[in-house]
Amino acid sequence: MTNIVHQRHEKDSSQTEVIGLIESVLAGNIRAVSQILTRVEAGGEEIEETLDRIYCKTGRAHVIGVTGVPGAGKSTLIALLASEFRKSHNKVGIIAVDPSSGLTGGAILGDRVRMISLTHDMGIYIRSMATRGAMGGLAGTTHEAIDVLDAAGFTIIMVETVGVGQDEFEITDAVDTTVVVSAPGLGDDVQAIKAGILEMADIHVVNKADKPEANKTIQDIQSMLSITGSRRRPYVPVLSTSAETGMGISELADAIIKHLSELQEDGDGAIRYKLRCERRILRAAEEIITKHIKSCLHEQALNIFKQVYSREKSPRAAAREFLCTFKYK
Amino acid sequence: MTNIVHQRHEKDSSQTEVIGLIESVLAGNIRAVSQILTRVEAGGEEIEETLDRIYCKTGRAHVIGVTGVPGAGKSTLIALLASEFRKSHNKVGIIAVDPSSGLTGGAILGDRVRMISLTHDMGIYIRSMATRGAMGGLAGTTHEAIDVLDAAGFTIIMVETVGVGQDEFEITDAVDTTVVVSAPGLGDDVQAIKAGILEMADIHVVNKADKPEANKTIQDIQSMLSITGSRRRPYVPVLSTSAETGMGISELADAIIKHLSELQEDGDGAIRYKLRCERRILRAAEEIITKHIKSCLHEQALNIFKQVYSREKSPRAAAREFLCTFKYK
Repeated sequence: MTNIVHQRHEKDSSQTEVIGLIESVLAGNIRAVSQILTRVEAGGEEIEETLDRIYCKTGRAHVIGVTGVPGAGKSTLIALLASEFRKSHNKVGIIAVDPSSGLTGGAILGDRVRMISLTHDMGIYIRSMATRGAMGGLAGTTHEAIDVLDAAGFTIIMVETVGVGQDEFEITDAVDTTVVVSAPGLGDDVQAIKAGILEMADIHVVNKADKPEANKTIQDIQSMLSITGSRRRPYVPVLSTSAETGMGISELADAIIKHLSELQEDGDGAIRYKLRCERRILRAAEEIITKHIKSCLHEQALNIFKQVYSREKSPRAAAREFLCTFKYK
Repeated sequence: MTNIVHQRHEKDSSQTEVIGLIESVLAGNIRAVSQILTRVEAGGEEIEETLDRIYCKTGRAHVIGVTGVPGAGKSTLIALLASEFRKSHNKVGIIAVDPSSGLTGGAILGDRVRMISLTHDMGIYIRSMATRGAMGGLAGTTHEAIDVLDAAGFTIIMVETVGVGQDEFEITDAVDTTVVVSAPGLGDDVQAIKAGILEMADIHVVNKADKPEANKTIQDIQSMLSITGSRRRPYVPVLSTSAETGMGISELADAIIKHLSELQEDGDGAIRYKLRCERRILRAAEEIITKHIKSCLHEQALNIFKQVYSREKSPRAAAREFLCTFKYK
């Protein structure tokens, strides 16, 4: 009896803690934001209820993805954009997504040091996110980090990604406006890797436009656009900037804001939002199922597994058989 | 009545066709192999039963992954390795995985033309695989293509990937021996992207070793290995080759064969195989569930979806609710 009362008491106090934390986030308390983001990054179930409640308080931020290969100057560009958006009294949140592994992570994270000059402004919040073994991977974590900043009253949220790999394509789904940053002189190999991401752009930026080869890069992008078009918009502007001289930054900020109002006007924004919701439901369901299967693989379903191991049954046939016994409580 | 007889007849003849196709593959008929791979690439359920049966006939091939950034010279190296493996009367299958999108695919596929000189040898089969919207993605398709070549009696199967992104990490799971190809002079940006894949190597190769900067690349890899180690093996050899002069090719082929016998001797091979089976079951189950949810999203579950859209419910809460009603027939 004592035990039950004790448990109930524990549950009550954890409930109170959750509600307190959510209220702090909604009030824009940066400590609470950081605390939740640390837990999002670590993964795990404890934070899920909190995040589910936070989701219901989102929907005010303009979320901007800034992507491009390493060396294009994304971090510096984002720092300049942040200052630009601050002029119109936005609260600016920056999420720098780090796809590198635990062992060799240093190379990419190093770039973020350049942003440090921003941190004296209390209206700008910067956070590097990595996902070492967190459930849901990079994309899931990024969606939830955006939710937290959105609920905390950040009106502009910029998400920086390196722009390679499937995960980063998924992050493109999480944003309203995708800015793809190129730069002259990065070499053909890098351009080949980047080819896929070019099609995801709402706005193209050629950074380091003070370099003499910049005109060629602009022309390359324009001719690529004239051949392939864009998956996203009938007209994709190609802007040029120089993080060095500050040239083109305010024009880029204007183009980003203009893009959001276009999305709202032509109904494209609503379509994108609906798709985004669908994908998040799908991903959440996959996560739940994957976790369930993983635990079963090591407990009940050993016999089905052995038949795959001995090649009596294909992995797909085993999965089908397994799912026939699936019951989600 | 006539109708039922007719349907049964149709099913019988499709059964006969499936069995005939499988027998042709097992007999090593290249036309049948190509026919199945085309269907694997296109995706869809029609081919699943055939693939499930083929799976039960696999397990004889040594599967080698060759990965590295564009420009490292993978295709030429694979061509030379293929000729080397032919000397010991292996049948050699080559799968070149193309991660590029439909619109901009040309850049990477172009490289494969260099391999064309091989195709006069009937003991070598080359196939480029892309996955434009196929179920299961790049990794699923690659697993199944390997199965088909394995069942068809190819004793050496080489899988070429560009080595960026999560999908390609998953392909590493599909092979026995992962060879990571580097080359001098590709630039730091490219190296940063590649950092993650370095840890997946069973064997490192520095290609273009005739170039003067090659020694530095070898030293870089060795010092990285001395810091991070390898996820895969306690000792990872760093070899050098020149596809230009043929230098180091037979040594590389020997190292690859030696790696397989080491795997067999120390039991690591069995552990990897078991993990690979588990991951394939998991992926197959995810595919089935994803498909099921997608069809439900557009039919029954509209109400749950609307609650996410209006932010009354989080995507995860909706997924949980949805899964409570899930029943796999």
